[in-house]
Amino acid sequence: MSNTMKAAVWYNQKDVRVEERDIKEVKDNDVKVKVSWSGICGTDLHEYEIGPILIQTDNPNKLTGEKAPLVLGHEFSGVVEEVGSNVKNLKKGDRVVVNPVVTTGKHSPETDRYYDFYSAGLHTDGSFAEYMISPAENVVPIPKELPLDKAALVEPLSVAAQAVKEAKVKDGDTIAVFGCGPIGLFVIVAAKAAGAKEILAFDLSEDRLHKAKEVGATQVLNTKDKDAVAYIKETYPEGVDASLEVAGVKPTFDSAISATKPKGNVVVVAIHARDFEFNPISLMTSGVKLSSSLGYEFETFKKSIDILMDKNIDVNPIMTKKVKLDNIVEDGFHSLSSDLTQAKILVELSGEI
Amino acid sequence: MSNTMKAAVWYNQKDVRVEERDIKEVKDNDVKVKVSWSGICGTDLHEYEIGPILIQTDNPNKLTGEKAPLVLGHEFSGVVEEVGSNVKNLKKGDRVVVNPVVTTGKHSPETDRYYDFYSAGLHTDGSFAEYMISPAENVVPIPKELPLDKAALVEPLSVAAQAVKEAKVKDGDTIAVFGCGPIGLFVIVAAKAAGAKEILAFDLSEDRLHKAKEVGATQVLNTKDKDAVAYIKETYPEGVDASLEVAGVKPTFDSAISATKPKGNVVVVAIHARDFEFNPISLMTSGVKLSSSLGYEFETFKKSIDILMDKNIDVNPIMTKKVKLDNIVEDGFHSLSSDLTQAKILVELSGEI
Repeated sequence: MSNTMKAAVWYNQKDVRVEERDIKEVKDNDVKVKVSWSGICGTDLHEYEIGPILIQTDNPNKLTGEKAPLVLGHEFSGVVEEVGSNVKNLKKGDRVVVNPVVTTGKHSPETDRYYDFYSAGLHTDGSFAEYMISPAENVVPIPKELPLDKAALVEPLSVAAQAVKEAKVKDGDTIAVFGCGPIGLFVIVAAKAAGAKEILAFDLSEDRLHKAKEVGATQVLNTKDKDAVAYIKETYPEGVDASLEVAGVKPTFDSAISATKPKGNVVVVAIHARDFEFNPISLMTSGVKLSSSLGYEFETFKKSIDILMDKNIDVNPIMTKKVKLDNIVEDGFHSLSSDLTQAKILVELSGEI
Repeated sequence: MSNTMKAAVWYNQKDVRVEERDIKEVKDNDVKVKVSWSGICGTDLHEYEIGPILIQTDNPNKLTGEKAPLVLGHEFSGVVEEVGSNVKNLKKGDRVVVNPVVTTGKHSPETDRYYDFYSAGLHTDGSFAEYMISPAENVVPIPKELPLDKAALVEPLSVAAQAVKEAKVKDGDTIAVFGCGPIGLFVIVAAKAAGAKEILAFDLSEDRLHKAKEVGATQVLNTKDKDAVAYIKETYPEGVDASLEVAGVKPTFDSAISATKPKGNVVVVAIHARDFEFNPISLMTSGVKLSSSLGYEFETFKKSIDILMDKNIDVNPIMTKKVKLDNIVEDGFHSLSSDLTQAKILVELSGEI
């Protein structure tokens, strides 16, 4: 085996190069994974288009000691290639997914990610590469029935599943999902898995609403045609049990608050690019509880594997395209930003299923 | 007994008249209370200074069928004078407090107040009068050891106790209170009663901070001298368990979010007069849960009587002045708005203790 591999390396905004990169040493507690598939995340796209955002370019990350250039990519599946000398619970040939986020473990599982952390693909080399090296404790074997392409969805599904957990969605609930981009679609999937009975999905794109229905929304509305709150209040005059705001603009934020019943949860999942005018009186008159979701607990990551194994769950409509690593910029980043029919684009590495 | 009584009647902004007013009929399910003491609420002051806000002047309230002119006042204690024919659990001479808010009972106790409701002193005649008539089910007897002047604090204490409940303050917690006006002081009292170990109080007024210490704050800081968040993070680098925002301005709102630990609760109690620039990213980076508190559950109102009976609780520093009904405008409203050393001003009706 050569000591280099092909990888998509972030150098700067609009400068991601597919090139040969050294394969790093596998330390005693590490696992080397031969990457099968790696999804393109909104974060990757933003680092490409308007970055650096999270990638450090001047000072090295304080946990990893690394800075750009770095291999992008953190939503992936693969097969164990090699394990470090201390690793006993994994072996070559194991089919796995990897939690890319490493926290310090100094706080509770619910809060550890809000303190120091680093992520593969942002603060150390990631998964748009033939091989990826991870701490063994972040590597999770998957059932043999789960195809490796679908397994690459575990990471973004975890983001959505954590938000649904934060919203305390329970069996029989009626929920509203504002925004049906990739994470919005995964939120619908996670809400269905959590037992939501009615899932109302809102977007401005017919293509996205079509996908929303395919993955589990029970009602969809194009908010070009009608106000979401007015629509909801016709059937649910007291509001829905919970709302997930996955669009990241003031109108959807305001709608989520107005559409939710007193003491119901409104969870912001989207990054808001712009500040907006707000008055907490809206929380008083609606009586809602407002929170956000960021990343996920490791438990949520593991449970997302079970969601993908659920026979009632279909995530195939979310996997819209598979592209070659060599073409990641043109067929991946450019396509994702210009084509609203795209949801999750997977980059083929080994291509093993 | 004459069929009229002396009362402070709201006619319009800056037009509250102390005059003779008809005493209404006591219906079958009602209780007539001879008012002992009635506190001036920020709401009363606002109706006087910049109202009408909640008082209806054109269309009658849909539950009471009434509109201004109306008797102001809703924080009060008194003695039962007469009971309606259906009222069995109360009798003439009972010392009582009255929950002024009447909801429909169609929803859970936690949420009923977010739907239709009316309040004495805003939507029907209130307690700045010799007599006040209430539905019997809102009338609660008080222990004989509780003086009637102190009992007039049950209502505003309930507002604070509900906010402390919303913030999930528990035994041993460290909490931050932003703003030490009357409700801020009651929040300190309620947090102490809920078991908070450390209560950090912030304000711009030395007089208010002094009172905050008297009623239970363990640390106080004048935020003219130092930033509250910087101060908190020196001792509690991960943040406090919960924050209560009782000042109603952007700087205290932002501080409350930044000062609270991930998954801790930030509860807005103050009415924000002005919108401000906000970005939900602040919720993501801090990891806090944001909610508000408005009014209280009837259970909370009843429990506030117990708080006042607690030997470790001292609310006397909050009762800053007692005034005559005839002088309510000058000695009450004007004093409260111009003198920061004033907290709760009680209007003397029968003056019984």
